[in-house]
Amino acid sequence: MRRGEALIHSVLEEYGRLTRRALRRYLPAGEPWRYLYDLVSDYPRRGGKMMRPSLCIATARAFGAQAEDALRAAVSIELFHNALLVHDDIQDESQVRRGAPSLHVLHGMPLALNAGDTLVMLSLRPLAEYRLGFGLKVALLLIEEMERMARESGEGQALELGWRRDNVVDLTEADYFEMVLKKTCWYTAISPMRLGALIGSGDMYPEFETLIRFGFFFGTAFQIRDDVLNIVGDERYGKELGDDLLEGKRTLMLIHLFSQATAGECERLAAFLAAPRAERLGAPVRWVIERMKHYGSIDYAQEVANGLAGAALHEFSTLFDRLPDSRDKSFLSDMVPWVLERNS
Amino acid sequence: MRRGEALIHSVLEEYGRLTRRALRRYLPAGEPWRYLYDLVSDYPRRGGKMMRPSLCIATARAFGAQAEDALRAAVSIELFHNALLVHDDIQDESQVRRGAPSLHVLHGMPLALNAGDTLVMLSLRPLAEYRLGFGLKVALLLIEEMERMARESGEGQALELGWRRDNVVDLTEADYFEMVLKKTCWYTAISPMRLGALIGSGDMYPEFETLIRFGFFFGTAFQIRDDVLNIVGDERYGKELGDDLLEGKRTLMLIHLFSQATAGECERLAAFLAAPRAERLGAPVRWVIERMKHYGSIDYAQEVANGLAGAALHEFSTLFDRLPDSRDKSFLSDMVPWVLERNS
Repeated sequence: MRRGEALIHSVLEEYGRLTRRALRRYLPAGEPWRYLYDLVSDYPRRGGKMMRPSLCIATARAFGAQAEDALRAAVSIELFHNALLVHDDIQDESQVRRGAPSLHVLHGMPLALNAGDTLVMLSLRPLAEYRLGFGLKVALLLIEEMERMARESGEGQALELGWRRDNVVDLTEADYFEMVLKKTCWYTAISPMRLGALIGSGDMYPEFETLIRFGFFFGTAFQIRDDVLNIVGDERYGKELGDDLLEGKRTLMLIHLFSQATAGECERLAAFLAAPRAERLGAPVRWVIERMKHYGSIDYAQEVANGLAGAALHEFSTLFDRLPDSRDKSFLSDMVPWVLERNS
Repeated sequence: MRRGEALIHSVLEEYGRLTRRALRRYLPAGEPWRYLYDLVSDYPRRGGKMMRPSLCIATARAFGAQAEDALRAAVSIELFHNALLVHDDIQDESQVRRGAPSLHVLHGMPLALNAGDTLVMLSLRPLAEYRLGFGLKVALLLIEEMERMARESGEGQALELGWRRDNVVDLTEADYFEMVLKKTCWYTAISPMRLGALIGSGDMYPEFETLIRFGFFFGTAFQIRDDVLNIVGDERYGKELGDDLLEGKRTLMLIHLFSQATAGECERLAAFLAAPRAERLGAPVRWVIERMKHYGSIDYAQEVANGLAGAALHEFSTLFDRLPDSRDKSFLSDMVPWVLERNS
């Protein structure tokens, strides 16, 4: 294990544990349990890498706050993330999440949808509590950041779902980057770090806007690696392998394949994407993956991710060079190569 | 037309128009239009009675505020209400909303679900703006009221959906009242009026909690009348007639019928509720309605609603007697008999 990797595992473990413990206080234990709060606490109980809350806590600490100060924001991000997962699984008809049946598979779509709605609203409560100790202004800024994050996520999700519904096949890389910026980067990197920076610096942080650039480069590299792992990853990943192709997700690999394949192959690919999910299983999915390998689409995506990671590291030094060196600062910069190399 | 009715129509028309005009400013007109903001603005464009925003504005004015001051809260309530409608229609598989196809029928479930999520978050923006003019404290209190309202709605929705999923048939009136308090009263009456009272009085309103009682009596009378109209109403209602029975909604009439019917009829009723929606159409639905008429379940529900309206008027005088008489105060008290008598 490389030094950076050891640090990352130890920070994710530590901040993940702190967040999970704090999170329990915000998951209601009362009624209606069987139809609501049992469902609400299901995905959070299943674990996960806890990357987003850890980015938030580390950023807050790099700016001089205590981990304790950032915990409520970390909880808020994790609750919102879990809400998205519940609704995503319904929209994608995903059967498995983190190695167990999806919430709508366990409880039916209507109750799962409602549990997702409740998780979204629960994510606001920890932020409102910042009025104590941090003041009304910071509390309101945190809530507005959350609202912005949710809006960007909704816009990105709309693009992805719309492209799939209409079987759009003439997408460019620029379309993909816009979609990922909104769908992934805001709630995965930009807002977790902006919330952390806000808590660490009050509202005095001068380059608040520039975190968007870092978060875009970092978050997109993360998403591309996620997409690559979905094609070449192993079972430990906890989702169905090749699932993205069954769902018809527009990945950079798919866009690259369309740009390289013959007219006949493109036609076959478009028909594959238009077919019902059940008809894509098995041989058709394997054919697409084989063509991606043939045209180097997977290697190409990984190369683009490498380039984005380089840009992220450049932005990182602009943003963080003036702050004193610390374990949290190292964690944040080590995260950049790590997202490219991770296998799960 | 009775005097009270004329006043109600004129206030609903006026405050509805003001709210709709203000609402347009909060509906983004940009991209992604086709996959998101066109969907987001669809239900709000379809109109509706605008009862909830009118309750908010009238309460604020009765407490001495200007209508203008309450508009953003009114917009917020209306946005949240529309979000609920979008998700409700998905959960209930409703085909029609306000006389036109439901959003998920027009655009597919995934994009409709996402539009509902976006409407929820958009409902927070007008409230955050209260920091200008009303101060940070009021803005945060308004947001916290909204979060409470959404949580109560989620709990009530969970009860209703859970009872239907598990075909629960041994419900009491107390179960029904608890469900309606959460599912309907909070977002229909309690929070619209509490938001209005907050805006009208700052946070100085001494009997803030007692609005819960008024809102419970009023909102439950409203819901019972809604359920009755679904059975005996006419086409102007804009929803499918007898739709509640097709959806298996647990209404006071259904609970009353179970308490009055013979063992054999109860068994047949439970089987009706367990059957797939398509098998309930036509003769089976007509049989249930006929049994409700036979056992006086519809009259009984209307009587309970009358009693609740009486209790609401009593609470009203406790709450509002000290405030100067005004058109808005008259509107609020006239609303109580009106919800019982309305035909749409």
